[in-house]
Amino acid sequence: MSSSFGNNIKLTIFGQSHSKGIGMTLEGIPAGKKIDFDRLYSFMERRAPGRNAYSTPRKEADKPEFLSGVVGDTTCGTPITAVIYNTNTRSQDYDILKDIPRPGHADYTGFVRYGESRDYTGGGHFSGRLTAPMCIAGGIALQLLAEKGIFVSTRIASIGGVRDEGNLTEYCLRGYKSGSAEGLRDNGNADTEMFRNPGAEGDFPTISDEQGRKMQAVIAEKKAEGDSVGGVIECAIFGVPAGVGDPMFDGIENRLAQIIFGIPAVKGLEFGNGFEAAEITGSQNNDPFYLENGQVKTGTNNCGGILGGISDGMPITFRVAFKPTPSIAKEQDSVNLTTMEETKLVVPGRHDPCIVPRAVPVVEAAAALAIYDFLV
Amino acid sequence: MSSSFGNNIKLTIFGQSHSKGIGMTLEGIPAGKKIDFDRLYSFMERRAPGRNAYSTPRKEADKPEFLSGVVGDTTCGTPITAVIYNTNTRSQDYDILKDIPRPGHADYTGFVRYGESRDYTGGGHFSGRLTAPMCIAGGIALQLLAEKGIFVSTRIASIGGVRDEGNLTEYCLRGYKSGSAEGLRDNGNADTEMFRNPGAEGDFPTISDEQGRKMQAVIAEKKAEGDSVGGVIECAIFGVPAGVGDPMFDGIENRLAQIIFGIPAVKGLEFGNGFEAAEITGSQNNDPFYLENGQVKTGTNNCGGILGGISDGMPITFRVAFKPTPSIAKEQDSVNLTTMEETKLVVPGRHDPCIVPRAVPVVEAAAALAIYDFLV
Amino acid sequence: MSSSFGNNIKLTIFGQSHSKGIGMTLEGIPAGKKIDFDRLYSFMERRAPGRNAYSTPRKEADKPEFLSGVVGDTTCGTPITAVIYNTNTRSQDYDILKDIPRPGHADYTGFVRYGESRDYTGGGHFSGRLTAPMCIAGGIALQLLAEKGIFVSTRIASIGGVRDEGNLTEYCLRGYKSGSAEGLRDNGNADTEMFRNPGAEGDFPTISDEQGRKMQAVIAEKKAEGDSVGGVIECAIFGVPAGVGDPMFDGIENRLAQIIFGIPAVKGLEFGNGFEAAEITGSQNNDPFYLENGQVKTGTNNCGGILGGISDGMPITFRVAFKPTPSIAKEQDSVNLTTMEETKLVVPGRHDPCIVPRAVPVVEAAAALAIYDFLV
Amino acid sequence: MSSSFGNNIKLTIFGQSHSKGIGMTLEGIPAGKKIDFDRLYSFMERRAPGRNAYSTPRKEADKPEFLSGVVGDTTCGTPITAVIYNTNTRSQDYDILKDIPRPGHADYTGFVRYGESRDYTGGGHFSGRLTAPMCIAGGIALQLLAEKGIFVSTRIASIGGVRDEGNLTEYCLRGYKSGSAEGLRDNGNADTEMFRNPGAEGDFPTISDEQGRKMQAVIAEKKAEGDSVGGVIECAIFGVPAGVGDPMFDGIENRLAQIIFGIPAVKGLEFGNGFEAAEITGSQNNDPFYLENGQVKTGTNNCGGILGGISDGMPITFRVAFKPTPSIAKEQDSVNLTTMEETKLVVPGRHDPCIVPRAVPVVEAAAALAIYDFLV
Repeated sequence: MSSSFGNNIKLTIFGQSHSKGIGMTLEGIPAGKKIDFDRLYSFMERRAPGRNAYSTPRKEADKPEFLSGVVGDTTCGTPITAVIYNTNTRSQDYDILKDIPRPGHADYTGFVRYGESRDYTGGGHFSGRLTAPMCIAGGIALQLLAEKGIFVSTRIASIGGVRDEGNLTEYCLRGYKSGSAEGLRDNGNADTEMFRNPGAEGDFPTISDEQGRKMQAVIAEKKAEGDSVGGVIECAIFGVPAGVGDPMFDGIENRLAQIIFGIPAVKGLEFGNGFEAAEITGSQNNDPFYLENGQVKTGTNNCGGILGGISDGMPITFRVAFKPTPSIAKEQDSVNLTTMEETKLVVPGRHDPCIVPRAVPVVEAAAALAIYDFLV
Repeated sequence: MSSSFGNNIKLTIFGQSHSKGIGMTLEGIPAGKKIDFDRLYSFMERRAPGRNAYSTPRKEADKPEFLSGVVGDTTCGTPITAVIYNTNTRSQDYDILKDIPRPGHADYTGFVRYGESRDYTGGGHFSGRLTAPMCIAGGIALQLLAEKGIFVSTRIASIGGVRDEGNLTEYCLRGYKSGSAEGLRDNGNADTEMFRNPGAEGDFPTISDEQGRKMQAVIAEKKAEGDSVGGVIECAIFGVPAGVGDPMFDGIENRLAQIIFGIPAVKGLEFGNGFEAAEITGSQNNDPFYLENGQVKTGTNNCGGILGGISDGMPITFRVAFKPTPSIAKEQDSVNLTTMEETKLVVPGRHDPCIVPRAVPVVEAAAALAIYDFLV
Repeated sequence: MSSSFGNNIKLTIFGQSHSKGIGMTLEGIPAGKKIDFDRLYSFMERRAPGRNAYSTPRKEADKPEFLSGVVGDTTCGTPITAVIYNTNTRSQDYDILKDIPRPGHADYTGFVRYGESRDYTGGGHFSGRLTAPMCIAGGIALQLLAEKGIFVSTRIASIGGVRDEGNLTEYCLRGYKSGSAEGLRDNGNADTEMFRNPGAEGDFPTISDEQGRKMQAVIAEKKAEGDSVGGVIECAIFGVPAGVGDPMFDGIENRLAQIIFGIPAVKGLEFGNGFEAAEITGSQNNDPFYLENGQVKTGTNNCGGILGGISDGMPITFRVAFKPTPSIAKEQDSVNLTTMEETKLVVPGRHDPCIVPRAVPVVEAAAALAIYDFLV
Repeated sequence: MSSSFGNNIKLTIFGQSHSKGIGMTLEGIPAGKKIDFDRLYSFMERRAPGRNAYSTPRKEADKPEFLSGVVGDTTCGTPITAVIYNTNTRSQDYDILKDIPRPGHADYTGFVRYGESRDYTGGGHFSGRLTAPMCIAGGIALQLLAEKGIFVSTRIASIGGVRDEGNLTEYCLRGYKSGSAEGLRDNGNADTEMFRNPGAEGDFPTISDEQGRKMQAVIAEKKAEGDSVGGVIECAIFGVPAGVGDPMFDGIENRLAQIIFGIPAVKGLEFGNGFEAAEITGSQNNDPFYLENGQVKTGTNNCGGILGGISDGMPITFRVAFKPTPSIAKEQDSVNLTTMEETKLVVPGRHDPCIVPRAVPVVEAAAALAIYDFLV
């Protein structure tokens, strides 16, 4: 079913951008799990808008109310439902969208799929706002994975072609190897110092501060032009033991792909060296095995920690391509679906010139849900 | 479940490389559909090994036997099961693999996941041979889609960094626009001349013959070196009407991704302009709407025909990255899992130096199954 | 997943008896369906407690709030979520249940399944209160079925061994045949007069008023004794065309059974003549075919309108056995799970001496959801 | 999907009565499980026709061939597929059924559902023959449950109104309590003497030999009359620990019901005292808890070992009503679907006058699959 995810857990996401509320039901979480709500809210805060220059100035009070499934701060084993009530929505901003679909948005396809009765305000069920409930579920999954020694780290790999430097896996393991974690940012899901996200400066998770500043400059520039820009997020999942996953249609790649492509604006996904693997030879690409303290390891990790859909014990790595925010200030060509005439459209409202920074915790949430689904 | 795919249809694939048989059960196909078995077998023939210089010289008699679900050449509405009996398997070739996993294969992860009792011979259930049953199901889906005016075209976009030229969508529509289909190859699923695959010369589906020859030269070169090479397959699905798909976790991208990552050796997947979208601006990336004969169209197709998980009526386009065949003739480092000592391994048997050409129909099969699942 | 139902629709029920709220998410309902909320609330009212002598005097304000999936009174195609907020719950009544499980309830099995962290108050997720969200979903399904000319009629067939008279199918068709509907009660889901529930007197849906009064006398008697009593509900679904359903595991019986056994206190289910079929011969039991106005009909309906899991066009009929309310005022033997000593228990709170009357709309809701799932 | 069952395992059944083969795919069985094939075949033998006076004289060679999922006698973790090839089918017997549906069979509903292209020969996919693959899967599940100390015992509770005597649970535990197992029959799934099926005399599993003889006499009598007769099978599952199952839609009753109603001819299902519970009071029906050697037990087992969908540690008990074989020698009324005229039909072929004896292992198979699905 379209708005549900999971085999062993079952996440259902409901709501439209401007409906009374949005939220999620998460089934399959065992009883007796303590949820650290402060940690969860601070994780969700990373997705919230209006926190800095490169995100939209809209304010949302996205604190979820838990209707069921927890008693106090502990899960009771039955479905967990949490709601974020929508307030202060300016639906009238969207009146024009009733007739004129925004290029790059799902307005037109939603119209064809659901007809006149679709909820077009604010993008309806297609809105990026629906990633907030995914972060509720994913934030819980991150905590449950941390219990098992599994951590998710994420960086912005590029924005508008400006690339970060360094190697995410190496970077995140740096604290582990050196015993120091300087320059690593707590991503709200780790109990230890060693697995942290990049991002010494502010909220911008890159390994290289300089490249991070350049990326922010690109965003600022595009914003000034009334335009937007896309980027790539890279993710590494540490601590997944070898042997997790299934062959064929329910491997780690398949499950991650199903949820990652559920994040709006995602257009590409690659595991390990991904598209680069298509350009090199087998002798370059294969990850030879060796032994380290009696453990089977690979020296390289071109396969991204996955062989045959199943984890090999190395970090699981993938990269996600986000397209530029389709809502831009520039005038665009569109069509009036009522009069069936070509027209010009200036998209109303204020929008993120780049959704990549806010998408970072969403990717972490998705990654955590897919992996936890195998391990619950 | 791991070896099952589909919401409205249900494909289950069974078998190991060297088990008595491999096959598939396909549920949900309506009664009364005529299957053109000759067309199906000739489609499957495109996946068969041993047909040319760049594929393995092993011979397989991959003609499926249909056990149920068809009466004569017509579906009867209940599950269709077809089996390909395995004959002439040389399991002894694989004795060494009991202890020593091949780098880049699922031997090690299969061992950890299933233990001593796994079927390691020939890669077991992880073998590329299991794509044959996917082609049975996909070949049927292609015929059922053709009935609805939907066609799948595929080309090899690159091999080892050598890129094809031209634009697949433009190329495939060329016959449609000009009324001529010169240089287009029938891909076994089209009733008309206009939607054909690239590939004037032999079986090598590229738009540019010259680039195709260069790719084949790269394969021959790597083969001579005892090495292998990867590549990218590009696919376009024509004729899907606007409004097909669902938001969030069951959109076209999600469903295609689940099955595409079920093809062995796939490491990346991108829709439309994919990773390129991450490098450009919204004003460049958005596909503005216009009217053509009263139909809503977009001039560009950066979104790959999908917005919010739902088709917009333009061709659905995606690219799939295949890693190089992990089985190479060169000696590699590995580990003996019984003695737990590091060792050298020379992979036995003969193998495709590049699986990309044989993967072309598999991608078409997967594409057809995912799309047909929405439209059955 | 445990709290989800449906193949084409997907119903998820969440909440515990005393959690902040209980509710449901219903996916798969098409866009553009008008919901008559007054009709829905009056349908739900039939399940509400405290309406008469034989139901518990507790008052619930069970009016659901719709958070998503509807715009105004019309569905928009994406998941519908509705919540009933729990207020005025007297959790302290249930303190004793932390240690001492009530016989006949799920207190003990819930403890073993979920451990100390289970929500035992008010029965938690096992509470009969969770049938309220099922009635939200089912009430919507009843309206959508009525659009298709499909109606669900239900009567109390017996209480504590006192049996109703007459034949439900004949009775419900009486108005249709005579053009009069005297003595038939509107069950809140029919647009016409002809398909109504039994129950001329008050809310007690029997064909025979006299037998209905006798049943109510039995309930009153058991209540006075501090005891409770069970009963049987019979249901007939009119208007399902022939050919609905699937063989084997997803036939009409299978789907109805899955949801019917999801209603607390159900211990038996039979279709058509059910257990009686086991006592007679084939020549007595087979329903011979004949023609009526060019339509294939059967003169009898021993099969309950279902052959091979698929409807034959006759009314679909089934009977559901409900056990007596396990909560009784009499002292019972139990065990203290903390001290592990045998003990006596007097169940706190006030409870229905017979849940059958309130279960009538719940059976209708379940029936509607199962049938609509095939026809959406 | 219609022909698939299971949440954690996935059983898919394929084939028609007269197709090239029938069979099953069973996913989710762990690797490394030894299957005792002799035991499995002898279990399947109990379902085979032609073994005695009250079953059809047709001969089937129902020995399955395993195509995949086992290496030698051991599972390898990936899907298990087994096929029974159909031979010696007399399709011409069924030519008349192309036009004239047999009362009580799915011929008419299959025609409406699937149209002209349905496979009507021998009942197609609706045939009782499809219970053979269910027995392959169920026979494996029985062996895997026995490993966990779980055993399934079954008796014929009644035939045509003639009832067996005694209490199944008491009877099966008799050997356990007395240390003797006289008069208990090995049902092919137990490693110990203590959990056996009733049935001292021949294959007719009743507790009372005398009642068993009376039942056989009824069958013989109805056969002589060219008629058939139904019956009830009772089943008890021993050894399921407390805490297995889930609330609401995936409880033990729901899962058992889904698969039990997948057996052809089943018209009713009740758990514990079932419909009897509807006639008594709460104080009679509740099963009070007591302690036995520090274990929580109930003295009675009216609930059939299930509270709130979850096992309470007592034997799980249920009864299944089978209608009389619809194929009888007597002339019946039917309709010619081609000419649309009323007609008389004499059903061709030879058929069981009572399918209940052969259904006993099928009920065991279904029970084992449903329970194993929770415990895999």
